[in-house]
Amino acid sequence: MPPGTRSISSKYRPGALFSFFGIVPQKIASHPPIKASRLSLGATPITTTQPAIGTPPTSEVAEWLEIFADALTRNDAEAAANCFHEDSYWRDLVAFTWNIKTLEGRDQICHMLQACNAATAPTGWQIEGDPTTTDGVADAWLTFTTNVGRGKGRLRLRDGKAWQLFTALQELTGHEEKQGFTRDMGVGHGAHKDRITWLQRRQREQATLGYTTQPYVLIIGGGQGGIGLAARLRRLNVPSIVVERNQDAGDSWRNRYDSLTLHDPVWFDHMPYIPFPDHWPVYTPKDQMGDWLEMYVKIMELNYWTSTECTHAEYDAAANTWRVDLVRDGQPLTVRPTHIVLATGMSGSPNIPNIPGAETFAGDIMHSSKFRTGAPYIGKHAIVLGSNNSGHDICHDLWEHDADTVTMVQRSHTTVARSGGGNRAAVGNYSEAAVAAGITTELADLMTVSEISALAPIARKKATDDARAANADFYARLEASGFLLDFGEDETGIGMKYARRGSGYYIDVGASELVINGDIKLRTRVTIERITPQTVVLTDGTELPADLIVYATGYGNMVQWAEQLISKEVADRVGKVWGLGSNTQYDPGPWEGELRNMWKPTNQPNLWFHGGNLAESRNYSKYLALQLKARLEHIPTPVYGIPPGHQLD
Amino acid sequence: MPPGTRSISSKYRPGALFSFFGIVPQKIASHPPIKASRLSLGATPITTTQPAIGTPPTSEVAEWLEIFADALTRNDAEAAANCFHEDSYWRDLVAFTWNIKTLEGRDQICHMLQACNAATAPTGWQIEGDPTTTDGVADAWLTFTTNVGRGKGRLRLRDGKAWQLFTALQELTGHEEKQGFTRDMGVGHGAHKDRITWLQRRQREQATLGYTTQPYVLIIGGGQGGIGLAARLRRLNVPSIVVERNQDAGDSWRNRYDSLTLHDPVWFDHMPYIPFPDHWPVYTPKDQMGDWLEMYVKIMELNYWTSTECTHAEYDAAANTWRVDLVRDGQPLTVRPTHIVLATGMSGSPNIPNIPGAETFAGDIMHSSKFRTGAPYIGKHAIVLGSNNSGHDICHDLWEHDADTVTMVQRSHTTVARSGGGNRAAVGNYSEAAVAAGITTELADLMTVSEISALAPIARKKATDDARAANADFYARLEASGFLLDFGEDETGIGMKYARRGSGYYIDVGASELVINGDIKLRTRVTIERITPQTVVLTDGTELPADLIVYATGYGNMVQWAEQLISKEVADRVGKVWGLGSNTQYDPGPWEGELRNMWKPTNQPNLWFHGGNLAESRNYSKYLALQLKARLEHIPTPVYGIPPGHQLD
Repeated sequence: MPPGTRSISSKYRPGALFSFFGIVPQKIASHPPIKASRLSLGATPITTTQPAIGTPPTSEVAEWLEIFADALTRNDAEAAANCFHEDSYWRDLVAFTWNIKTLEGRDQICHMLQACNAATAPTGWQIEGDPTTTDGVADAWLTFTTNVGRGKGRLRLRDGKAWQLFTALQELTGHEEKQGFTRDMGVGHGAHKDRITWLQRRQREQATLGYTTQPYVLIIGGGQGGIGLAARLRRLNVPSIVVERNQDAGDSWRNRYDSLTLHDPVWFDHMPYIPFPDHWPVYTPKDQMGDWLEMYVKIMELNYWTSTECTHAEYDAAANTWRVDLVRDGQPLTVRPTHIVLATGMSGSPNIPNIPGAETFAGDIMHSSKFRTGAPYIGKHAIVLGSNNSGHDICHDLWEHDADTVTMVQRSHTTVARSGGGNRAAVGNYSEAAVAAGITTELADLMTVSEISALAPIARKKATDDARAANADFYARLEASGFLLDFGEDETGIGMKYARRGSGYYIDVGASELVINGDIKLRTRVTIERITPQTVVLTDGTELPADLIVYATGYGNMVQWAEQLISKEVADRVGKVWGLGSNTQYDPGPWEGELRNMWKPTNQPNLWFHGGNLAESRNYSKYLALQLKARLEHIPTPVYGIPPGHQLD
Repeated sequence: MPPGTRSISSKYRPGALFSFFGIVPQKIASHPPIKASRLSLGATPITTTQPAIGTPPTSEVAEWLEIFADALTRNDAEAAANCFHEDSYWRDLVAFTWNIKTLEGRDQICHMLQACNAATAPTGWQIEGDPTTTDGVADAWLTFTTNVGRGKGRLRLRDGKAWQLFTALQELTGHEEKQGFTRDMGVGHGAHKDRITWLQRRQREQATLGYTTQPYVLIIGGGQGGIGLAARLRRLNVPSIVVERNQDAGDSWRNRYDSLTLHDPVWFDHMPYIPFPDHWPVYTPKDQMGDWLEMYVKIMELNYWTSTECTHAEYDAAANTWRVDLVRDGQPLTVRPTHIVLATGMSGSPNIPNIPGAETFAGDIMHSSKFRTGAPYIGKHAIVLGSNNSGHDICHDLWEHDADTVTMVQRSHTTVARSGGGNRAAVGNYSEAAVAAGITTELADLMTVSEISALAPIARKKATDDARAANADFYARLEASGFLLDFGEDETGIGMKYARRGSGYYIDVGASELVINGDIKLRTRVTIERITPQTVVLTDGTELPADLIVYATGYGNMVQWAEQLISKEVADRVGKVWGLGSNTQYDPGPWEGELRNMWKPTNQPNLWFHGGNLAESRNYSKYLALQLKARLEHIPTPVYGIPPGHQLD
């Protein structure tokens, strides 16, 4: 049996997609320089920590591949499924299923192939690079073609049968992005009476798209998610508009609190196509990120409408298009895109608790999303309700700005991870060491999405255990301060909390020491019961003086945007967005094994959800863009296995 | 004797630095993929077209290097010079000479070493990558260190003695650019009461630099040259300001004629640090280039003052600083930088001929620098004086906009080169094929500057001969139209004309066919004698109706800017800028073998000239920035061999 797949208690049905916190146990530091021929996407991953023994993996893989390919060609689903272990996984990104789907076990694989293989017609399976063997598992990158495009794959083979297969469409034949050898000339040499300059073309597009011509895709929300997707659609020639409420691209970062920097290091955070230059800081300050996005929108020639609000969207099922009401620069306007993508951030509306007496408070009271700086609160008493990232960052900022007292009200347990900090190589395939070893962002991305969600907790548990051991003194001091520390129900740490519920943790960049030494005062296992003009009263009866109250209480689910912009009926049909169905707190089952409704078809035709952190937005925007491009080109896209919408509590 | 070095008639003392038009006869198309270990800067250049025979080049090179290094260590200039052939070359970029200098022959080499070697104290000579042998010449990349920094070198060895040596400082020890593993963190983890955000730091710098603190370098002119240099200085922590007359960065391109695109393909045109994305067109339209530069200025955090004019500069020799009078947004202001760099474009003021009757002309009359579009001249008669790039482009544009007649007045012979066009791989180390082979822009740049100016005409003559043969029909038709075609005095073509005089050619993107078929009318061996309200009268007596007259008559020398901004005395001391001293038309001797006054110390302390096309600006800005950084850090920079200023005609 593959390690720990079905042996985990069904109560904690595990899953996560994220190599973010070092989840993928790939070692690169000691690896010798890899050769140029291995730098391409299909390169051998640098996972080889033990030399192969016995059968060279290449012939083992080739043998398997021949049998598997032959079964697919004969459309014999059962024979193809028999190439897999009983306990096995196949993750497909829109190559076979036109969905983002993990099939678990031979039966599910067989069922999918019966439904999808004939239409996919995969051929030309090739091994790319040299397979490796680790702990008895042969690991090979593959290429293949379908009847509509070219794909990449990854096979993990044990004892002659597949343990894991990964397949991902990479480009649509005849609709490839123009780049490198196929880039545009930029000028029509020769003499042409009807010459149109680049500027004229841009100006015409800006004057007509959304007015006399309709975008194929409307992206609602112009943060990094909407911007990156729009860039991919631009390269695929899919007419698109991004609408953004703010005045300038990048304002979604600029408008956050002053001291904010990205919590993820730079190697995760590249946008598609234009990487940050190599002096870019490890943790990008928010205003610098704002400038980068503003530049990016311009350079990628996006149709990006600032100061534009979406007020309502309605699907016309007969016409298969949306009617979307906008207000652009104060002027109402209706557009009729075929698809809409909600890229409104993976959170819904701010959660604002309804606390008696709040209306009588004499000081400032705000949700964390409105907090900008602690500067006005020198010598004041501040109460922060909540103990996740925003709660900690805001307490940190208030203390640095000399608030008299800063009190964090912690209602429930929180996972604390220590930030990469000085350890710049500690983040797997996204690190300076990986860059030095020739691992491009594109390759690291492919490695990341080739991992199986159901297997993630194994690695995460080990990584969490290691981090706890390495930081034992820190965690002991933090708990001694009274802080309610946890590492998740199954002790799989921050990565799993992120995938399951998108919150419940703090990446420590300095506030934990302030908690430990008492500079940030802690009140635990309580919440605010009521508010008076000058104080808050906690549920244990304590009364604390207060000039500022910040609700660092998080956000609702992303599907709230669908309810607000479209209708409750559509929101209900789509169901919850994000989470894996791990049956842990805030992530109830049933198990889906993929993030619900993200980057893939939903139960509402032509409605899509896009987002995640910068790395996920970059990575999955590729597959969302391919899905949209295929539809624009009327390529058949039969979707396999959309689960019913999962209702919110 | 090395091929053709001293055998060329001294009348045409040759020289050019530019691989731009395929000057470097390196073949890459048929080369097998190179290995990652050869991708670094010191990689073996991909010049090997013949396998090595006899002595393996590595041991031959190693042997030479040992003797040479030993002589340098003993400071025995004569012994070191004896490692060279009598006819030999040493090009140094600020490693030994703190100058950009080519020494020709053993005597000059010996003299330089006597002056410079002790202070340079070079050590640690190493071969980088595998040397190759072509036509009996062993070719090796080297690394070495000096007492202040790290250098790269290239050795070409024949029969055991050096034919060519190239040495170039790459970085100053202890003052390296922070990048990759040494990049900034971007956030100070931990709790700090005095935390300053990125935005606050930027705002403080913008508020103080040039007002309460002084820049070390003031760059006058904010086109691609000034911008790229400022970016390098930013990475080296040299406080700098760029002043630019226009309202926005990029306007120097936007304000040109509508149909303009870069004449150089994209692989030449990258700015330092942030390459264009891979969909960027082969020939960048001017407005797109404007947007790129505007973005670049912001992202590289340059102190870039728009709407700022420099009115006067004066050197205070006692204080070793400049007093520079500026008008910024209409407000006068004086700054006191230690150095000023003129990055005003490699041209001086527009040449405007003084033609009798011009003041009586009823139509529009303008220099090419003011021409924007042919659109207003539908059905009109246009006369363009001049037959170089601008002249052709403007005729082309007028014809496309349906001018009734377009007449080009050609006063003298012009070289026409066919643009790379569809042949995307035809530009040597800067091409898609080079990218695919792993040749980075940085490596291509180093290959380019390692070439010896005096040897360039050999390769250029051959390349020109080849191009003439390949396009024989085109050239025959062009000459049959009456066009005065040449390939330079010594038939070395466009590359040499560029280096010698910076003009005298057209890169054909379509206008030549219009000349051939008569759509552009040609008047040759004449100029405009006088102008009447509705006509021009040529020197052969012909009178042509005219609604528009464009002077595509070029520009004066760059040193005019020094005269205008500083004084005639300083301009005279500095002398002519650009040109090699090849003793050809517009490039009189004496031979210098390097472009006069460009990117290196001049006869006016603390005054520098920077510019060239995008590739040269990028390439040489590195060495100019190192010279400025060394001075900022009070590293001794004894300059060897500044020639006397070469006076203008």
